[in-house]
Amino acid sequence: MPDTNPQILLARRPQGAPVAEDFRLAEAPIPTPAEGEVLVRHRFLSLDPYQRGRMDDVKSYAPPVALGAPMECQAVGQVAASRDARFKEGDWVLGGYGWQHWSARKGDALIAVDPKEAPPSTALGVLGMPGLTAWVGLADIGQPKPGETLVISAASGAVGQVVGQLGRIAGARVVGIAGGAAKCGFLTGALGFEAAVDHKADLAAQLDAACPQGVDVYWENVGGPIQAAVFPRFNIHGRMVMCGMIAQYNSAPGSAAVGAPPGPNLGPVVRKRLRIQGLIVFDSWHRYPVFRAEMLAHIAAGKLTWKEDVVHGLAAAPAAFMGLLRGENFGKLVVALD
Amino acid sequence: MPDTNPQILLARRPQGAPVAEDFRLAEAPIPTPAEGEVLVRHRFLSLDPYQRGRMDDVKSYAPPVALGAPMECQAVGQVAASRDARFKEGDWVLGGYGWQHWSARKGDALIAVDPKEAPPSTALGVLGMPGLTAWVGLADIGQPKPGETLVISAASGAVGQVVGQLGRIAGARVVGIAGGAAKCGFLTGALGFEAAVDHKADLAAQLDAACPQGVDVYWENVGGPIQAAVFPRFNIHGRMVMCGMIAQYNSAPGSAAVGAPPGPNLGPVVRKRLRIQGLIVFDSWHRYPVFRAEMLAHIAAGKLTWKEDVVHGLAAAPAAFMGLLRGENFGKLVVALD
Repeated sequence: MPDTNPQILLARRPQGAPVAEDFRLAEAPIPTPAEGEVLVRHRFLSLDPYQRGRMDDVKSYAPPVALGAPMECQAVGQVAASRDARFKEGDWVLGGYGWQHWSARKGDALIAVDPKEAPPSTALGVLGMPGLTAWVGLADIGQPKPGETLVISAASGAVGQVVGQLGRIAGARVVGIAGGAAKCGFLTGALGFEAAVDHKADLAAQLDAACPQGVDVYWENVGGPIQAAVFPRFNIHGRMVMCGMIAQYNSAPGSAAVGAPPGPNLGPVVRKRLRIQGLIVFDSWHRYPVFRAEMLAHIAAGKLTWKEDVVHGLAAAPAAFMGLLRGENFGKLVVALD
Repeated sequence: MPDTNPQILLARRPQGAPVAEDFRLAEAPIPTPAEGEVLVRHRFLSLDPYQRGRMDDVKSYAPPVALGAPMECQAVGQVAASRDARFKEGDWVLGGYGWQHWSARKGDALIAVDPKEAPPSTALGVLGMPGLTAWVGLADIGQPKPGETLVISAASGAVGQVVGQLGRIAGARVVGIAGGAAKCGFLTGALGFEAAVDHKADLAAQLDAACPQGVDVYWENVGGPIQAAVFPRFNIHGRMVMCGMIAQYNSAPGSAAVGAPPGPNLGPVVRKRLRIQGLIVFDSWHRYPVFRAEMLAHIAAGKLTWKEDVVHGLAAAPAAFMGLLRGENFGKLVVALD
């Protein structure tokens, strides 16, 4: 067992896009689990866009990361020492915390992961928070019906790829928006989407071609010009699932800042009876067991796949995270630790 | 029985705010009811903001009024001749049509009105389309809970006054926004609202004072600067019932025109898990009987009142309608015909 716990700390709060100097590599003692706690050796860290919000000192749905504290993330790992009878050494668990190699957590905060069911890293993606986000948002807000058109931005990302496949399973006509030919080919190939739209080319013309019957459900991960292009295409009773607006995470802290770019005129919300609704997956974590069982059944039936973008070593995390905010990842971004 | 049917026709499509020349007084023959039809002598015409949209030749949820056709409205009147066994001469009915004295309608399009239950004109207001709008929007979208803060724009208008009273009955803390001291006094007086905000004075300061706990439900009738002032005040899980945006009916046909003013940045929809949803009452007319029974019970219990703004004579309709679009009405606007 190593002597120290390598960590990446929040060194300062970013001004706009994060830069390398906003992070600091450090070493801390490996934590000692208290009674009821479990020491987890992290094997995979999850990098997700919401973590950008935690770097700002603004009121949000969760407190910001403190300066000098490890950057926030979920981690999958193995139990190294347990003072909770439900967990024993070597067990795989979801629920480690932070950009670091080790964390000690209450057993109540951990979820057992069975590596025979699926590779453990999927507990951070298709079978984890991004997957649950997709599943809850479609069940509660999007509700795609057979034959309806479902459009997804950041469609090859961690959440988008699950949204589209669940939409396809529900019988919807799925159109994914992504950046570049490789991602678009992945959407219509491996994921079985009906069409893909490359936002680096003429968005309006491609949307016209891909959505001849308009848009019934729009899954919003991005905002900005993509939102502006999709919004006028809603059909009557359209639903807009507001999962994120990554395009402005670097420029509009908390998304409520003075100077945040304006949104669409809401007149069509009345005329078309649209529903625009936000979700945060942390409200729905209690639905995880039902979600996981359904997802495993889809995987077993060969209906659902996933793509991970794996970087190796803790030191790679900051650059990978900065790239994530620029849309450079291809699939669910995880950091593998050895 | 008179010889002719006075009408007000759509003479031309307005450019911006309607002016007198957009309307034309005319006379037509009194229609002869066909088999299954009922001839209705209109006693009260309903003037409502949505009629402005019908004057534009744009795609909407209903076709526009044709040039040279009577302006659209619902009317309450008495049966003058019936070829439907369910209706007899002298019966009061809701479902007459158009800015005119007479119309012949299929019996299926009519709803019997019992003048012993409430004054017949209320079938155009508290017991009619505006009331049903309020009831459906609160039941399906707003869902105010005891102690929550419900804010309403155009709060003394036909819909707003019902929304606020139903919200008060549901136990919400009701804050109405209206223009001028008389309307504001009506809200906190006769209607029993907790607070009133005069949009002709400092909106932000008044909202701060009236909503110390933020806004849980916002009923949107207006748009524009009022929307911009309320939107940032939403609490987590806030609901925004999109009933109308009268502030832009004269300037943004169909509300989707290029040049329509932008709306709020939608970032807070994610962060606060807001729900923004539109409604059009015509989707819910089948719920009228349940609605009416509930409303009559509230009225009988002394919990619900209403205020009408009555103008007299068909010729007064255009000016009254133009005033409605400027917020000059005080209560549900109806035209009484003799």
